[in-house]
Amino acid sequence: MAAAETARVNERKRVVVLGGGFGGINAALGLAKLPLDITLVDRKNHHTFQPLLYQVALAVLSPAEIAQPIRSILRDHQNIEVLMDEVVGFDVSQQRVELKTGAQLEYDYLIVATGSTHSYFGKDQWARLAPGLKTIEDATEIRRRVLLAFELAEREMQEHGTHPPLNFVVIGGGPTGVELAGAISDIAKLYMAKDFRHIDPGTAKVQILEGSPNILAAYPPDLQKKAAEQLNALGVSIRTNAHVSDVQPGYVMVGDERIDAAVTLWAAGVQASPLGKLLGFPTDRRGCVIVDQFLNPPGHPEIFICGDLAHVEENGKQIPGVAQPAMQMGAYAAKRIGRLVARDFGSDGTGLNQPFHYFDKGDMATIGRKAAIAKIEWPFHAHWSGFPAWITWLVVHIFFLIGFRNRIAVFRQWAWTYLTLSDGARLITGSQELPGWAVPEAPQSVAEEQLDLASPKTN
Amino acid sequence: MAAAETARVNERKRVVVLGGGFGGINAALGLAKLPLDITLVDRKNHHTFQPLLYQVALAVLSPAEIAQPIRSILRDHQNIEVLMDEVVGFDVSQQRVELKTGAQLEYDYLIVATGSTHSYFGKDQWARLAPGLKTIEDATEIRRRVLLAFELAEREMQEHGTHPPLNFVVIGGGPTGVELAGAISDIAKLYMAKDFRHIDPGTAKVQILEGSPNILAAYPPDLQKKAAEQLNALGVSIRTNAHVSDVQPGYVMVGDERIDAAVTLWAAGVQASPLGKLLGFPTDRRGCVIVDQFLNPPGHPEIFICGDLAHVEENGKQIPGVAQPAMQMGAYAAKRIGRLVARDFGSDGTGLNQPFHYFDKGDMATIGRKAAIAKIEWPFHAHWSGFPAWITWLVVHIFFLIGFRNRIAVFRQWAWTYLTLSDGARLITGSQELPGWAVPEAPQSVAEEQLDLASPKTN
Repeated sequence: MAAAETARVNERKRVVVLGGGFGGINAALGLAKLPLDITLVDRKNHHTFQPLLYQVALAVLSPAEIAQPIRSILRDHQNIEVLMDEVVGFDVSQQRVELKTGAQLEYDYLIVATGSTHSYFGKDQWARLAPGLKTIEDATEIRRRVLLAFELAEREMQEHGTHPPLNFVVIGGGPTGVELAGAISDIAKLYMAKDFRHIDPGTAKVQILEGSPNILAAYPPDLQKKAAEQLNALGVSIRTNAHVSDVQPGYVMVGDERIDAAVTLWAAGVQASPLGKLLGFPTDRRGCVIVDQFLNPPGHPEIFICGDLAHVEENGKQIPGVAQPAMQMGAYAAKRIGRLVARDFGSDGTGLNQPFHYFDKGDMATIGRKAAIAKIEWPFHAHWSGFPAWITWLVVHIFFLIGFRNRIAVFRQWAWTYLTLSDGARLITGSQELPGWAVPEAPQSVAEEQLDLASPKTN
Repeated sequence: MAAAETARVNERKRVVVLGGGFGGINAALGLAKLPLDITLVDRKNHHTFQPLLYQVALAVLSPAEIAQPIRSILRDHQNIEVLMDEVVGFDVSQQRVELKTGAQLEYDYLIVATGSTHSYFGKDQWARLAPGLKTIEDATEIRRRVLLAFELAEREMQEHGTHPPLNFVVIGGGPTGVELAGAISDIAKLYMAKDFRHIDPGTAKVQILEGSPNILAAYPPDLQKKAAEQLNALGVSIRTNAHVSDVQPGYVMVGDERIDAAVTLWAAGVQASPLGKLLGFPTDRRGCVIVDQFLNPPGHPEIFICGDLAHVEENGKQIPGVAQPAMQMGAYAAKRIGRLVARDFGSDGTGLNQPFHYFDKGDMATIGRKAAIAKIEWPFHAHWSGFPAWITWLVVHIFFLIGFRNRIAVFRQWAWTYLTLSDGARLITGSQELPGWAVPEAPQSVAEEQLDLASPKTN
């Protein structure tokens, strides 16, 4: 081998990982053992355990219990650096990533795992009126609105003898929508029952509006039915084939029908991270990058797409954008990169013909505090519902939390809140405004003016 | 007694308590045992344990660990209702409180305990540049800025080979300023030491700027000296007789001298809640209502002012605006109201000549994670410093937390973070902007536009 070539071969390769979610973190952890330099980039400083975000949204857990700084997770691996920055462009021929600050990152291998975000089906103005649930900020905003609705109703009742109906509308009947709806009902009927003097939180009505003929489309019909039964038992009503045509402060429109809503939540659509289109490769309707069996886009064996951003098919069906596939794809990409690098170093290329295969262990969704549905595929096939499914969900989710401390802390917090119906994390922080709530205007007082200046209200 | 008079005497009296801090909560708990109807009003839904706010600001504890919904604290008392509302005016002759929503609350007795807020000495435009520490929102904003400064420095170093100096300036050398400064130093030198690859957080410089000749003016000279030594040992520098003449993004001015600051924090002045002036009684220079020995303003034995809002003197010195006096005043007001009501019912007026007396048990402030100063007045007189003072501080503060669950949870969280130097609650939520940080502008990408619409950034 010529000296230059030897030098190139012996130089440490650099892997750039975009995204600190399940895909990116698992990729980084897999790569850490290899003789590589890794740079992980994320717009936020923390990794969020998204499956438990709804627990933050309903004020049972605090943000810090389900999120951890990325630096902490990767702290012990000296060959991994973490950059808090945002990607604004790619130059795949030059193997470079362009960052918002103007800097550029060169890579030998690139893993793009920036996930998905909300889709309002083109009606982006609905975002402010109907928050979704993907980030800590989303969760605390939902928390703020839900808790505020009860506070404002109590106040209205005390001061004016009446209050707008406590109607909560969840648009979307997939797992997120079902979990949110069940949890709102719990909060209202159980946790907050004794807190108010003028309203009965138990009168809160929760309604799921689902556009297709069934909630939980990814689940088999028997589990869909069980879920609907359990939701009804919790006081949650379900409307299927209900297409929301408009979202306004205080109500939504289903066709010509107006449905009043003190709080409206969005769980109806996701689209891929915009980095999908920015990469320049073919994408599907949702913006997911179409990849081959090695998770590579066409013509680029050095680029891997993992998680919600990837369009991967298994047995003719698209792999869903949930946590398990993202984790597995990240681990696979790391392993494959390891094999490619080994081949460059003269190994015989063992395992390079091994494609990505999704190992579906099953899926589950909670319904309130005592029930769930679970579609189990491993270690055996089964459909569970009710309390056994809920216990399984608890165990599985707690143990998949990244980071030992979080597991113990979350379990304890949960156990306490569950057993004692205690107040969890029911803090309202930030503004006391709820779009669409008809509150009579009062003149701004001196008090308000001075306080506005003195206390920053951002959180 | 005439029938009408019997009726009036036998009607349940209504007490309105304004403020859900130490004064208001303790007053409400004291009143709960009496045959009265109590309404507690606060602009927020939660009570905040202010002495531990700096732990949230420095990302060791989460907001929910030091704050609790007021409804929860008072849940078991059926004669107490909680209203989340804001007071905009008083009519003391008619015995009425005017609320922001336009409603009015009538009272037989009124307890005003709305505390204090930041004073920027007239320069309210400094509030945005130098946040203070009085509320959960304040604490998480400080947290955001401090953590962000390290993240941005790491990024600048990685991308451009240099970074602005990590200078943290705390304006004000009282207990709050000292605790913040010591904690920033801890975070930088200990907790985050292994998190970064390009910067050494230990190079962060923390400086206290105090306008008077000494820090910790309320403490005796020997403890002031110990505190200064301990701060210096932590790498915190102290400038006394330093009057800040201007606060700008990225620096402050002391006279003609410019001091660069990545993050500037305000711990220099408080003023009474604006309700003090709104009441219409004589106030002192800071807006505190001047009260007599029964905590009543002139001519109104049915109105009590408690906590930071009250100007009360004991042995010729004004009682400081800290937690202990507020709690004691609240309890006293409740007891006195009980005696007044009993007298109306025909009792002989026992105890009505008993004035408020502040029982000073002492004061303490932490300095970093291993040291503190403690001025102990009960059960004996002593000046402690170093580790023994710190342990005392720990025990006292944990056990004064309102609410059993919080005590255990906070202790555990603390113990873990302390012993393992773990990541605590180091989440950056909300925007990634830091006023004054010179970041090169990049054109807004499609990515950014879509994400701005889809994800609300409030928290």
